[in-house]
Amino acid sequence: MQLDTLIVNGIIVTVNPDFEIIGNGWVGIKDGQMVAVQPHRPGYLLPGALETVDAKGGIVMPGLVNTHTHLPMTLFRGLADDLPLMTWLNDHIFPAEATFIQPESVYAGTLLACTELLLSGTTTCCDGYFYEHFSAQAVLLSGLRAVLGQGVIDFPAPGVPDPSENTSVARNFIQRWQNVDPLIQPSIFCHAPYTCSEKTLREAKEIARSTGSLYQIHVAETRSEYELIKERHHMSPIAYLESLNILDSRTLLVHAIWLDDADIDIVARSGAAISHAPESAMKLGSGIARIQDYIQAEIPVGLGTDGCASNNNQDMFQEMDITAKLHKVSTLNPQAMKSRTVIEMATIAGARAIGMDRTIGSLEPGKQADIIIIDTQAPHLTPLYHPESHIVYAAKGSDVRDVMISGKWRVKNRGLVSLNLDEILDQARAEGKRIQQWRTHLEPT
Amino acid sequence: MQLDTLIVNGIIVTVNPDFEIIGNGWVGIKDGQMVAVQPHRPGYLLPGALETVDAKGGIVMPGLVNTHTHLPMTLFRGLADDLPLMTWLNDHIFPAEATFIQPESVYAGTLLACTELLLSGTTTCCDGYFYEHFSAQAVLLSGLRAVLGQGVIDFPAPGVPDPSENTSVARNFIQRWQNVDPLIQPSIFCHAPYTCSEKTLREAKEIARSTGSLYQIHVAETRSEYELIKERHHMSPIAYLESLNILDSRTLLVHAIWLDDADIDIVARSGAAISHAPESAMKLGSGIARIQDYIQAEIPVGLGTDGCASNNNQDMFQEMDITAKLHKVSTLNPQAMKSRTVIEMATIAGARAIGMDRTIGSLEPGKQADIIIIDTQAPHLTPLYHPESHIVYAAKGSDVRDVMISGKWRVKNRGLVSLNLDEILDQARAEGKRIQQWRTHLEPT
Repeated sequence: MQLDTLIVNGIIVTVNPDFEIIGNGWVGIKDGQMVAVQPHRPGYLLPGALETVDAKGGIVMPGLVNTHTHLPMTLFRGLADDLPLMTWLNDHIFPAEATFIQPESVYAGTLLACTELLLSGTTTCCDGYFYEHFSAQAVLLSGLRAVLGQGVIDFPAPGVPDPSENTSVARNFIQRWQNVDPLIQPSIFCHAPYTCSEKTLREAKEIARSTGSLYQIHVAETRSEYELIKERHHMSPIAYLESLNILDSRTLLVHAIWLDDADIDIVARSGAAISHAPESAMKLGSGIARIQDYIQAEIPVGLGTDGCASNNNQDMFQEMDITAKLHKVSTLNPQAMKSRTVIEMATIAGARAIGMDRTIGSLEPGKQADIIIIDTQAPHLTPLYHPESHIVYAAKGSDVRDVMISGKWRVKNRGLVSLNLDEILDQARAEGKRIQQWRTHLEPT
Repeated sequence: MQLDTLIVNGIIVTVNPDFEIIGNGWVGIKDGQMVAVQPHRPGYLLPGALETVDAKGGIVMPGLVNTHTHLPMTLFRGLADDLPLMTWLNDHIFPAEATFIQPESVYAGTLLACTELLLSGTTTCCDGYFYEHFSAQAVLLSGLRAVLGQGVIDFPAPGVPDPSENTSVARNFIQRWQNVDPLIQPSIFCHAPYTCSEKTLREAKEIARSTGSLYQIHVAETRSEYELIKERHHMSPIAYLESLNILDSRTLLVHAIWLDDADIDIVARSGAAISHAPESAMKLGSGIARIQDYIQAEIPVGLGTDGCASNNNQDMFQEMDITAKLHKVSTLNPQAMKSRTVIEMATIAGARAIGMDRTIGSLEPGKQADIIIIDTQAPHLTPLYHPESHIVYAAKGSDVRDVMISGKWRVKNRGLVSLNLDEILDQARAEGKRIQQWRTHLEPT
């Protein structure tokens, strides 16, 4: 068999069920899939291939899966930091969204996000925002694999001035994008149990069920949300969602920080998954989720960056590093959240959380060829004893040299293959300038 | 006046007492010092210079000050992670040190660390280890500015097989290096109050006082250390050091995590400074220092990475990011540890902590020209509303384009000017290979 691509001379971190690491191996790719993941055997003849890529002793691993982001919010990167949550939302983010979130800005912001994701080794993302149709167009152009959720909220929102139409807009979005491209999976994103009525929450779940789509929702993010829902519904946010019959294996609970033992039990039994976005939760002072307990309860837990208004980057390597460290210090246990666990969260467990673990998340024959190569020829990655340690504790997104999605190179030698970076940056800067001028006008200092 | 170097077209983050940010400015350098830090005025003639460097709209800021590291330990990067502290130390780090820490490995490991520090924007570091004479030779070659502390501990140590000679070795080191080069300040590093006797702690302080050197010590790092000292001496580690008359403005307390209100008061009154190394403390599960309270008490607090055995990199940008976020989530207060405070910790406050704030730590005329330029032409730094936000929350060490120390370029266009990176990496890899072989021999799996 003639392969399309052969990647040789790499340290292969497979993230397969045994977490096998092949010290010197090769990966064969044909028709967008991996057909072989093998150790190098001296004297053994490698199959022919149209293209052979030398990993030069670098780390070859599955592309990262970012289970929570709001792509167009890259335009609000660093717009307002270090503020109380409600000031940040009400005085900065919501007014900026109301004024600037238009089809053009969603498209420009999403493209900006896609360049950042690709260049830092993310091959799949799970997004939720408004004007999601325009995000989908940008993502399609970028070649990223994505779950894209149209936002649903019981307030006037960008593109949905009349909240009574929020679920029907989402239904239309899903129907429109359901069979456009194998890389794009439309989804529905209910903002939160405190911003959506019972009716909205249920209707959205019906749409998700009837279309086989992922149902995303922010839940139990802050203590005040927990208390508010307790007061309104006399149960925890998780118990409330369960009472509405929303939790199942196609539900992604985002943040899920304020859970008690009973909540963990409910989530585990339901099959629902959790997206952990520690950097955002740290920056907003929301709290520290009991991730080890979730994993022990066999809840699928993926990692996410959250949007750039609260992170302020989309680098999953940094997210891994902080995840490993945060839970060690919060439990005063250096054995908590080991590097392999964290890598799984950023790959196979994240894939499972969004329902894609049969096709992506590990380097195994038969899976989609979503592969990244990390250049280890750098002082901060020298010496190299354990590749899994470097992935979590020493590497950065900027160490990613090559990125392949479904067999197609999207990044080569740290450069984008099919997107015009300068044009995308110029467009994003123009949007940023408009936002800046509006702010200066509002707040003359 | 003819300048040596003129840096133009930059966003100047001065970190002067008013934290002035000049949207488009220039810096003039002559004889290793800054002579002007000015806004660009259209029509105003710039002074002549031998060399003009275009910052291309990037951020120009003071070089970062890493107040705590163990440079040669880069060789142990990722050797052993995710272990209980005592297993990590006794089964991995101490045996590796006993076997491999030799003059050659100290020199090779330090050079490796210097390349990493320079390439990620650190211009000054404060180090402590053994065979410090060989570290000093490597640092001198690198052009970094450094405080270098010879380690003192009441056990046989690399280069000091007889602990009764530990302070005299340190005294010799200080005398030998005291007037070699303006960039090198010799110092003494007492390991900790639980590994050094009262006699050793006092003798070391006398040497520091008589030579005008910085006295460094790890203290109150873990709860168990706190309890041990309480049991042995019936007082807290900080109170114990005070009782030995060790605390003054030339004392740097490293970690200082387990402090009560009385301890904070003691440190504040003494004038001693604190080095905060959050990534290491998180990874080892040591605890979260009450940094905001320390700053409020007007204790000088600098940032440090710690050595690569427990971090595992020397990137001060990541240290800033984590510092800003950790203290927000640990206090559930998004207004804690704002970006400007964190930048000060990584520059002027760090300089103050090691006694150098009159010469470095900010961009002001008369100070040493220790300057870095951050390239902002990247997706993860676009758009740019507030440079201080990007420095803390979005930039990485890999965004540093140019690094100047005392008027000399050490990094240009992301490349080392005066060090041979390939040679240094090869040497470090050779040391790593020896360590790996010894481990494999010890633990056949």
